[in-house]
Amino acid sequence: MSTTTTLRGVGIGLGVAQGPVARMAAPLPAPADAPSTLGPDAETARVQEAIGVVARELEARGAQAGGSARDVLEAQAMMAEDPTLEAEVATRITAGKTAEFAVYDAFASFRDQLTAVGGYLGERAADLDDVAQRVIARLRGVAAPGVPEPGHPYVLVATDLAPADTALLDLDQVLALVTSEGGPTSHTAILAREKGIVAVVGTAGALDLADGDTVIVDAAAGVITVSPSEDERAAAQRRADARSAAASAPLTPGALADGTAVPLLANLGSPDGAAEAVALGAEGVGLFRTEFLFLSSNTAPTVAQQRTSYEKLFRAFAGKKVVVRVLDAGADKPLPFLNDAHEENPALGLRGLRALRASEDILREQLTALAEANAAAAADGEAADLWVMAPMVATVEETEYFVALAREYDVKTAGVMVEVPSAALLADRVLAQADFASIGTNDLTQYTLAADRLLGSVASFQDPWHPAVLRLIQSVGAAGAALGKPVGICGEAAADPLLAVVLVGLGATSLSMAPTALADVRQSLLSHSLDDARRVAEAALAANDAATARAAARAAAS
Amino acid sequence: MSTTTTLRGVGIGLGVAQGPVARMAAPLPAPADAPSTLGPDAETARVQEAIGVVARELEARGAQAGGSARDVLEAQAMMAEDPTLEAEVATRITAGKTAEFAVYDAFASFRDQLTAVGGYLGERAADLDDVAQRVIARLRGVAAPGVPEPGHPYVLVATDLAPADTALLDLDQVLALVTSEGGPTSHTAILAREKGIVAVVGTAGALDLADGDTVIVDAAAGVITVSPSEDERAAAQRRADARSAAASAPLTPGALADGTAVPLLANLGSPDGAAEAVALGAEGVGLFRTEFLFLSSNTAPTVAQQRTSYEKLFRAFAGKKVVVRVLDAGADKPLPFLNDAHEENPALGLRGLRALRASEDILREQLTALAEANAAAAADGEAADLWVMAPMVATVEETEYFVALAREYDVKTAGVMVEVPSAALLADRVLAQADFASIGTNDLTQYTLAADRLLGSVASFQDPWHPAVLRLIQSVGAAGAALGKPVGICGEAAADPLLAVVLVGLGATSLSMAPTALADVRQSLLSHSLDDARRVAEAALAANDAATARAAARAAAS
Repeated sequence: MSTTTTLRGVGIGLGVAQGPVARMAAPLPAPADAPSTLGPDAETARVQEAIGVVARELEARGAQAGGSARDVLEAQAMMAEDPTLEAEVATRITAGKTAEFAVYDAFASFRDQLTAVGGYLGERAADLDDVAQRVIARLRGVAAPGVPEPGHPYVLVATDLAPADTALLDLDQVLALVTSEGGPTSHTAILAREKGIVAVVGTAGALDLADGDTVIVDAAAGVITVSPSEDERAAAQRRADARSAAASAPLTPGALADGTAVPLLANLGSPDGAAEAVALGAEGVGLFRTEFLFLSSNTAPTVAQQRTSYEKLFRAFAGKKVVVRVLDAGADKPLPFLNDAHEENPALGLRGLRALRASEDILREQLTALAEANAAAAADGEAADLWVMAPMVATVEETEYFVALAREYDVKTAGVMVEVPSAALLADRVLAQADFASIGTNDLTQYTLAADRLLGSVASFQDPWHPAVLRLIQSVGAAGAALGKPVGICGEAAADPLLAVVLVGLGATSLSMAPTALADVRQSLLSHSLDDARRVAEAALAANDAATARAAARAAAS
Repeated sequence: MSTTTTLRGVGIGLGVAQGPVARMAAPLPAPADAPSTLGPDAETARVQEAIGVVARELEARGAQAGGSARDVLEAQAMMAEDPTLEAEVATRITAGKTAEFAVYDAFASFRDQLTAVGGYLGERAADLDDVAQRVIARLRGVAAPGVPEPGHPYVLVATDLAPADTALLDLDQVLALVTSEGGPTSHTAILAREKGIVAVVGTAGALDLADGDTVIVDAAAGVITVSPSEDERAAAQRRADARSAAASAPLTPGALADGTAVPLLANLGSPDGAAEAVALGAEGVGLFRTEFLFLSSNTAPTVAQQRTSYEKLFRAFAGKKVVVRVLDAGADKPLPFLNDAHEENPALGLRGLRALRASEDILREQLTALAEANAAAAADGEAADLWVMAPMVATVEETEYFVALAREYDVKTAGVMVEVPSAALLADRVLAQADFASIGTNDLTQYTLAADRLLGSVASFQDPWHPAVLRLIQSVGAAGAALGKPVGICGEAAADPLLAVVLVGLGATSLSMAPTALADVRQSLLSHSLDDARRVAEAALAANDAATARAAARAAAS
């Protein structure tokens, strides 16, 4: 493209970046089963060369990546040169197949065997596919599919990123992400927020970009500028520099322009992230997920095992608020000791607090461990301000049950997640029983729109900007204000700098998010007063759909 | 039990009945694999006698039942005497097993083979189990498990009824149903409403009732009176007689005590039920399900096939309102031509209007057939007042899409089902686009409480009396009143005589239900003015949970 054009999508965060495009190469088509015209000797030589090059490449990339990525890549290099596979390829070449087809067919056959075995080996099937694709690409002399490796920093352009793609992505080389599909809760968007990468998702026309095109990716505006002018590039650079300066500015507590405090908290999945969260200015933990303690074993962890993890977390946030969510498991995240029944619709099944009530001893042990851990930290003056909440609460009765149980363990502050529509609709009665509510916007959106948040064919419904979801959040906010109870947000929505303003306008009193999102949200809040936030929220509520709500809020906020 | 005691549960309908208890016998425990003490000859004789008696019994019951039940029972009789099975039993007896164990083991082995074959034969496995249980019961000299056959009319007492139990239930012999489990949307409750059987479900203590106990089952009060006095029995009989008289009273249009019209409509699943619905006073059809046309084939029905069915329906309701729901399918009711993708949570998947949009030709053909069918009926002056609605609508945009499409086919009245929380929350904007709304309370409850309505472990959440659901219904009713648009109810809730009053109080303008429920609902509405209904609805809304809402409404209504 020679003249400046712009593409529009959904920006993640407030960042801006620029650089040359490198596209994610599409998967290779399956080789045709045509007879070899080169003969077995030549085909064998081609395969050996290709496999050797691919294996050395994988090893070199592993050495560069280090850590667990190195292990994965070295295992792939070994797969490429596996003697069993080599023999299978040779058999096919002897039978007159081309090198491409022999590799394709032999690897596919081995892949099916791995899949049939299942378990750990079954999960290696995708790695084997990747190796096969690399060898076939080498044989054809084309770029290997998957993440590009242009050898310099680049703007990655893709349809969407799969978890497997991102695992090996060299984030130091990625200036920005642009995808043609995916919404604000897509895997790409979550990765971008977690890692603080500039990103625009759901960008129509993104796949028309060519390798080497220069682009400015403006996440705040949701705009890609193709072949920008020198002036545009300089302006983008000034903004990026200003943002870097803001990111290294003093880590002030979250607040609106008029000084209204809006504590900014971290979502954490294990105590390991505590130091980074503190470094990025988290004023506490708004959502501590405890599943990590339970998912790795066939039995529940002991009280002592749990206590060690909790104590580490509490000491890291001594004197600060730490909201712990008790185990949130169900048939979608099966734990054999909790619920191993097959369910037709696990998202609507015996999960969260429902499953814990059916195994109350596990819940009691978790509350015991939490209380003991904070008492141990308190002995050194390092106790956190411990809040405990239950997931998947639908009724007032469940609220009463959980709060009463937590009180037995001297937990002073006990509340509930609001992620089921009924809990939001009855927020006035729920908050009459609970000390606080924390809105999980991802599940709340899923249930309110009755659309599986992990199912691609209904992904368009999964948008926390939907006015139906905003109305529910407003009703929780109003109930909290009427009763003087805190209402936090701990879903992905809180990490969207503009939506964060809307949420405060709807009555949220604190926001919890991936720590890398804190700087952008902090900056966004500082630009708006509480009156502004309410006005922006009203603009969003008045819309009929999510896209219009987002646009109306942007217009009202600027 | 010698003195009068009472049990409490959830009554279905307004009926009252009395009679002797017969309990559903529990499944037999598996016979122990102990050696025979009688010897092979004696065991063989015992088996032959038992199998012969069971086969003759099944044939006799089939002859009495007639129709498709006869076919099922005769097939079971043939299974009992199948020579292959006989040989398998003989092998085990020769090896020294008891007759009980030989039958148990041989049938179980054959059952596993059927299950492995799958398909039609796989589905016969349950029938085979039933035969084995009957033979073993005969061998032991105990009552066969399953539906009792006391030889006189009885009150059936069970944990809950499975579909297989009810298929062969002789309804002429069943005076009433009492279950210890199950809620108002359980299979038992649905059967009771469909067939007009007096029933109380979820009755604590029901399983303590003994065969032969005399009970009064009062569905209106949700009370079982055990060993009632003569006065109590006489009073119950007077009520039952009065109700029979009401059922044969003139079929007046649905109305409140103050004359406010509340049209009472029928839910129908095929045109075959039209005559019965008219006979029971249905003023039209509030929900015509069209899945029956699509479920029996691997391809969509032709326009001509559909037209024939629709025309039959329209002529049966000439001049009356007929609300047709377009195809409501998804991964839970898979149609290979519509959506055969595996979904983790089909209830939250590509179903209803979502699936139809992805195959718009099927939707267009259905609208074509509907328009043509009513035009054909109109040629003879027999057109119905055709309303068309879309299932599983979540957004304003979907509403606009469906209404615009229906207009292309000259459908004058196009609306939406409100069964997704977002549609209820945005009812003001949805009804601005649609001509009417029809609330599907079963799915609306399922999504609002985020609890699969078919999953036993979360069945307690599936209660349309839940105040969160009532609040959503109220918001739809208010939107309808503000915009002058009709708001119907077509879920199970409308068939509950007391809840029907609440629904009208919340703003419902018509009620649609299984035709057998019409008389009870008609009578209930006639006992309350619109002011009453609003007062009763307020009482229900003020409750924190479903049970309290029901009790509060009952108190306010009496």
